[in-house]
Amino acid sequence: MSYELYYWDGIQGRGEFVRLALEDANAAYIDVTRVPGRGTGEMLALMDSTTEAHIPFAPPFLKDGDRIVSHVANILFYLGSRLGLAPDDEALRWYANGLQLTITDFIAEVHDTHHPIATSKYYEEQKAEAKDRAFEFVVNRMPKFLGYFERVLKQNPEGSGHAVGNRVTYVDLSLFQVIEGLRYAFPKAMLHYGPQYPALLKLHASVKARPNVAAYLASPRRLAFNENGIFRRYPELDIEP
Amino acid sequence: MSYELYYWDGIQGRGEFVRLALEDANAAYIDVTRVPGRGTGEMLALMDSTTEAHIPFAPPFLKDGDRIVSHVANILFYLGSRLGLAPDDEALRWYANGLQLTITDFIAEVHDTHHPIATSKYYEEQKAEAKDRAFEFVVNRMPKFLGYFERVLKQNPEGSGHAVGNRVTYVDLSLFQVIEGLRYAFPKAMLHYGPQYPALLKLHASVKARPNVAAYLASPRRLAFNENGIFRRYPELDIEP
Repeated sequence: MSYELYYWDGIQGRGEFVRLALEDANAAYIDVTRVPGRGTGEMLALMDSTTEAHIPFAPPFLKDGDRIVSHVANILFYLGSRLGLAPDDEALRWYANGLQLTITDFIAEVHDTHHPIATSKYYEEQKAEAKDRAFEFVVNRMPKFLGYFERVLKQNPEGSGHAVGNRVTYVDLSLFQVIEGLRYAFPKAMLHYGPQYPALLKLHASVKARPNVAAYLASPRRLAFNENGIFRRYPELDIEP
Repeated sequence: MSYELYYWDGIQGRGEFVRLALEDANAAYIDVTRVPGRGTGEMLALMDSTTEAHIPFAPPFLKDGDRIVSHVANILFYLGSRLGLAPDDEALRWYANGLQLTITDFIAEVHDTHHPIATSKYYEEQKAEAKDRAFEFVVNRMPKFLGYFERVLKQNPEGSGHAVGNRVTYVDLSLFQVIEGLRYAFPKAMLHYGPQYPALLKLHASVKARPNVAAYLASPRRLAFNENGIFRRYPELDIEP
């Protein structure tokens, strides 16, 4: 049975972290809102259901048979062992989940650079505040998070170049997407900071070269970044550190 | 061996969600930064370590022997089954983790009502933006999250009054803390919205009456809410919906 991924159509967004794991593992899955005859209405109906026992708050969520698993980190924790993308060691699985939750926080901060005041309003209605928040993000938060993940890679006792243990996990795939997205949204900052994070950039390149990831990136299933997603390229927010 | 909880001294903050689980279960634990002779320096040294294999990004984190588990939802997922505060059923455990991650997002939005632009700056430096963000929070986000959790309680097929399954879990304890904190920070909104969420308020009262929780709340281990924490009472942000 195929996994069913529910996420907003038209953007990479948070769903992309799940897609990368499913694609790398060559897992059978259906991207529900992109399937003709199904679509976003089906996702919203499930969220608004008054009878469903386990309603999700927001996309993305994954259906596996009659199970619904929501939130990126939870979905990846769930899928990790099933797809061969989690460490075998139990202690390392808890560590991987902690790393993924730090990525979650990082992504939320990326989102808030263009929506610092209200998700219910357009970016254009909060541009001045967005510029202030983007400044804080680029100058303080980006190096804090990137520096942390660089340390994680360097202090991995396996010396493997991976975030956890001695082989690829879903955390590595997510870090690839973080770098990819930051390069899209904040090219000046990434050009400036890049040399400080050689281990992260090396990991990014190695994930990008994985055969299933490369095939996915070249396929129509991989949407382009755009200004409806989380990583948005607004020149006025692309601040020079 | 006692669990060791690492969190900022002087505030309830995110650490409180972990404390409530440890206290309800009457688990042996050390609140490291509050122990004379240990303190915050020990926490920071661990975070800044250049040799530690599994460094956490931020508090709270939990040490269990030589394991370090970071992020509230991860810690509670880890502790849940060990403390008898998680569902027995595996599917329900993934559901519980999804609910806890929605609480995580809710709490992050509470934090950003007083820090919408920069965590590196004081509230007083972002008061105008905070008022706009608090308006959005009170008018749109608070009812969205609270309405969701009310539905979760009502649509629980067990009809148990609990968020998951037929007995108390760490999710219930966290929902108690959410209500407690919102009543502190946004008393006007909570007075206004309260009647719309009877199941949540009933759960709040039932958790508060649990013997170990009640004993904890009456003890000096429970710090008072204050304006260094996540839930802050700033009259100008206590907007009438």
